[in-house]
Amino acid sequence: MSSPLNDIQFILHDVLDYRSHYAALGLDNTVDRDLLNMIMDEAHKFASSELQPINAAGDAGCTLQDGQVTTPPGFKEAYRKYIEGGWAGLCGEPRFGGQGMPETFGFLLEEICCTANMAWTMYPGLSRGCIAALAEHGSEEQKARFLPKLLTGEWTGTMCLTEPHAGSDVGLARTRAETAADGSYRISGTKIFISAGEHDMSDNIVHLVLARTPDAPAGTRGISMFVVPKFNDDGSRNALACGNIEEKMGIHGNATCELVFDQAVGHLVGEENKGMRYMFTMMNAARLAVGLQGISVAQAAFNRASEYAGERLQMRSLSGPKLPDQPADPILCHPDVRRLLLTQRAIIEGGRALVYYVAQLVEITSHTTDEQQQQQAQLQLDFLTPIAKALLTELGFESANHAVQVFGGHGFIRETGVEQFVRDLRITLLYEGTTGIQALDLVGRKMLGNQGAGLQAFGQMMLAVADECDADFAEFAGTLRQLHQDWGEISMNIGAKAMQDPEEVGAASVDYLFYSGYAVLAVFWAKIALAGARHDNAEYGSSKVDIARFYFARMLPRAEAHRQALESGAANLMQVNGLAFSA
Amino acid sequence: MSSPLNDIQFILHDVLDYRSHYAALGLDNTVDRDLLNMIMDEAHKFASSELQPINAAGDAGCTLQDGQVTTPPGFKEAYRKYIEGGWAGLCGEPRFGGQGMPETFGFLLEEICCTANMAWTMYPGLSRGCIAALAEHGSEEQKARFLPKLLTGEWTGTMCLTEPHAGSDVGLARTRAETAADGSYRISGTKIFISAGEHDMSDNIVHLVLARTPDAPAGTRGISMFVVPKFNDDGSRNALACGNIEEKMGIHGNATCELVFDQAVGHLVGEENKGMRYMFTMMNAARLAVGLQGISVAQAAFNRASEYAGERLQMRSLSGPKLPDQPADPILCHPDVRRLLLTQRAIIEGGRALVYYVAQLVEITSHTTDEQQQQQAQLQLDFLTPIAKALLTELGFESANHAVQVFGGHGFIRETGVEQFVRDLRITLLYEGTTGIQALDLVGRKMLGNQGAGLQAFGQMMLAVADECDADFAEFAGTLRQLHQDWGEISMNIGAKAMQDPEEVGAASVDYLFYSGYAVLAVFWAKIALAGARHDNAEYGSSKVDIARFYFARMLPRAEAHRQALESGAANLMQVNGLAFSA
Repeated sequence: MSSPLNDIQFILHDVLDYRSHYAALGLDNTVDRDLLNMIMDEAHKFASSELQPINAAGDAGCTLQDGQVTTPPGFKEAYRKYIEGGWAGLCGEPRFGGQGMPETFGFLLEEICCTANMAWTMYPGLSRGCIAALAEHGSEEQKARFLPKLLTGEWTGTMCLTEPHAGSDVGLARTRAETAADGSYRISGTKIFISAGEHDMSDNIVHLVLARTPDAPAGTRGISMFVVPKFNDDGSRNALACGNIEEKMGIHGNATCELVFDQAVGHLVGEENKGMRYMFTMMNAARLAVGLQGISVAQAAFNRASEYAGERLQMRSLSGPKLPDQPADPILCHPDVRRLLLTQRAIIEGGRALVYYVAQLVEITSHTTDEQQQQQAQLQLDFLTPIAKALLTELGFESANHAVQVFGGHGFIRETGVEQFVRDLRITLLYEGTTGIQALDLVGRKMLGNQGAGLQAFGQMMLAVADECDADFAEFAGTLRQLHQDWGEISMNIGAKAMQDPEEVGAASVDYLFYSGYAVLAVFWAKIALAGARHDNAEYGSSKVDIARFYFARMLPRAEAHRQALESGAANLMQVNGLAFSA
Repeated sequence: MSSPLNDIQFILHDVLDYRSHYAALGLDNTVDRDLLNMIMDEAHKFASSELQPINAAGDAGCTLQDGQVTTPPGFKEAYRKYIEGGWAGLCGEPRFGGQGMPETFGFLLEEICCTANMAWTMYPGLSRGCIAALAEHGSEEQKARFLPKLLTGEWTGTMCLTEPHAGSDVGLARTRAETAADGSYRISGTKIFISAGEHDMSDNIVHLVLARTPDAPAGTRGISMFVVPKFNDDGSRNALACGNIEEKMGIHGNATCELVFDQAVGHLVGEENKGMRYMFTMMNAARLAVGLQGISVAQAAFNRASEYAGERLQMRSLSGPKLPDQPADPILCHPDVRRLLLTQRAIIEGGRALVYYVAQLVEITSHTTDEQQQQQAQLQLDFLTPIAKALLTELGFESANHAVQVFGGHGFIRETGVEQFVRDLRITLLYEGTTGIQALDLVGRKMLGNQGAGLQAFGQMMLAVADECDADFAEFAGTLRQLHQDWGEISMNIGAKAMQDPEEVGAASVDYLFYSGYAVLAVFWAKIALAGARHDNAEYGSSKVDIARFYFARMLPRAEAHRQALESGAANLMQVNGLAFSA
């Protein structure tokens, strides 16, 4: 009911050919199609039976009393089943008790759970980030101490970055870390917006905290990472407390905590002053996961809207009654309702292909032995990550809003259950870096910062897809080649302008991100059309070709609007009378 | 603080020249600039001191107990002050106790109150619709009985259209009206989504109810309108009850009621079976008012975002530190934050000019004695009403979301107070006819239905504005002339296609509405630029010219995307494998 396993499998196997992908990486001995499908089936069963039924009630939120957070009814029990099922360690290192599955398995699990219940899925989601950072940067002792319990799921993790005056600008963080006699540190400061920062689901919570040592340089170069568990090794309570949980627009089932550290015992991860770099290894995976949240929740909203559109009878079709015996026709017969549904589908499935493709890049960077291939994959991964994060959250939010629109006035009513998806999704455009931050990262670091190498690497794939389209989808082929050329020119122009005026980077950034995003989705919709055309089930395959045609005809034209906007330059933003910005 | 009176006055006096407008209608003896400004000042004082302070707390919602609805703290008291101030009768007929002000005064009052508190403003807002319908279609006896109390505000009104199975398709309504011996009727049925349907703010509530008499023909041709007061003339309680109030996404302070009529005493308004036509006289004014809600609430969100952008320090400007003594620069220095703020401003002020222009058309249609002028104004009014409703709610929602985005993660927190605007606004895209319904009305009835006469009438104004732009804004002039030509061609093409296939109307509808909407805003931004350039306060005027340039450069290109989408035709929506619509 919740996640469309056939659509997921279609993207994995028919569009992205995971079998060849794993064979090329030498992973085909450990993972194969059957294992992938079996794990998905099990994840789907778990999510449908345990997570989806508690999603709406979870909207009532968590409560805080005497420093203890109580999660909504059923959340704790569902988590117990999750760890009993061994899900927490799915992609963990076997030597610490993990099951060693490649990264895609983790993304699939996250998607399937998130479609059922986003707020709940954030609890184990935060743990995965914590596990990744410790596995990559922790000492052997730290790994041995924390990873086994995190991989069973008995303990959960968090990321503690934000402070009241330090949001996008993490370098402003003031939390202090003082050295103690035993070589550990004492952490003091206040962190806010800590998702899953305190709750009743696990025995311990492992916080990764960014803080400054006494002599640290100012800004991001003086940030270090510390691991600060809620309970110390000897079982004593560490000196940190949840001071508040936020009232929010959505994801009420996940506790968003203010954490106050008051001389809490912390342990330095890696080297001093390298915390920002370590945090970014977590952050990149987290950004991709947030992009995935965008389309996962959009899928849940689409499921409801498509069902309703087939059942709700209102008005007659413009071309004459479709159900003459009924008082009206199903609203699915109305062209604009179909447009709303196809827009959702184009976003969700194009976005899914993008995320899984990026997941393949993640797997290549971590498993290949071919240095050249590694480098090319890394370039694409860096380039596509901010696009996937920002585009799929913005479009996921749009998609869920379209689902509400299909319901008409009923969509505004809480009982209908579809407006919750809009409220839940709104955070995805903000956390792990707003759309604006992603766009600066894309244009500044990932495009101009390496002279367009990331775009070039992806562009090669784009042209290869265009070639494949020549036979049966000539119009897609032509469009992709034109896009490829324009995209390159637009990028060069931004670079040229930025040499004159650095504000041109920011002025072009978000429109460039959207332009790029629509171009990227065009590539994946062309790939989907190719896979649809050769699919064994002709009816199923042709439905995908139809959505691809819809995408090229009705959504891709948005790219041109973004192009014109970004090419208009910085003057219409920067040389503006200040009164225009004051109420 | 809440409503920008100078911006409102700028549009009224400098852009739309209300003095000449009222002089041409012979109204300049009763209303002048000073009176208009004085009433606005007073409305602003009332809204700032009484409505804005109770807006956030009102988000906690209404309660229903034993059939009684209790509104949020302060709502009742604010309403008492509203009626003491004589606001309820501002535009009412003097012979029933109203103050006889022209319609614009009512829109201004509604805008100013709505910026302060949308949920509260809906209570008197519904009354205005009820007053308009009774004034136009009620018998003298009904007017004498209901209007005086509605115009003092002692009583409030509602519109009861929707039933569980009859939303957009009002013709499916089943509520019955049986004749009684005394010539009155007995009304039975269930109405849902009745805003302000039950509350504790007034002595009586006057419901206008759509129902079917026993022999009425099926569909919309068999709908009659009845006036059904909560309390009968003799003070006895009428047989209707509030069965439920809805839990919603927003506008919690307004009670959205299910009303159950069980042989309630009702009185026929006008003639039998003409209820739909009568309802549309209310509906058109209501649609314009909803469009106004879109930008009014967007204004409230902009006020917060612009203030925050000037205060919040995060990251350094790309062109070097702006406040070197501070740890970071205000986020207002970042190009994308400026883009977000200017987008809001372009939506709000362009939208405001559109609404006031339509308000002028309303006044012309009701006050002119020149038949030709009356007809031309009516054509434009009909054409622009669905555009104003749909465009300004869609863009108002976008605008409020941009305000949240300016706040970053803090925007998602309820305490910040800006996410409420997004939730409140979401309903405006749905009620009084969804965006899809407005678009069908526009393309089917208002454009094709009269062979483009409405577009032609507005097009004349458009070309006149282009001529005015030739001297100082040649680029706007050229763009407007091109848009004028394209718009005509696009409209003709839809007509030609629709002759072959009626589905083409629905397939083009929403994109045509957006295309038209961006063209309409271009006209008003050109007018604003002209008024800005000749403004006494050069700094103020130039800020408006800057926003106009922003609109043409960065927002108007969206029109082209909608054009391409709509020109792609119906096939990519209608000839689609059904699997594309099922989860």
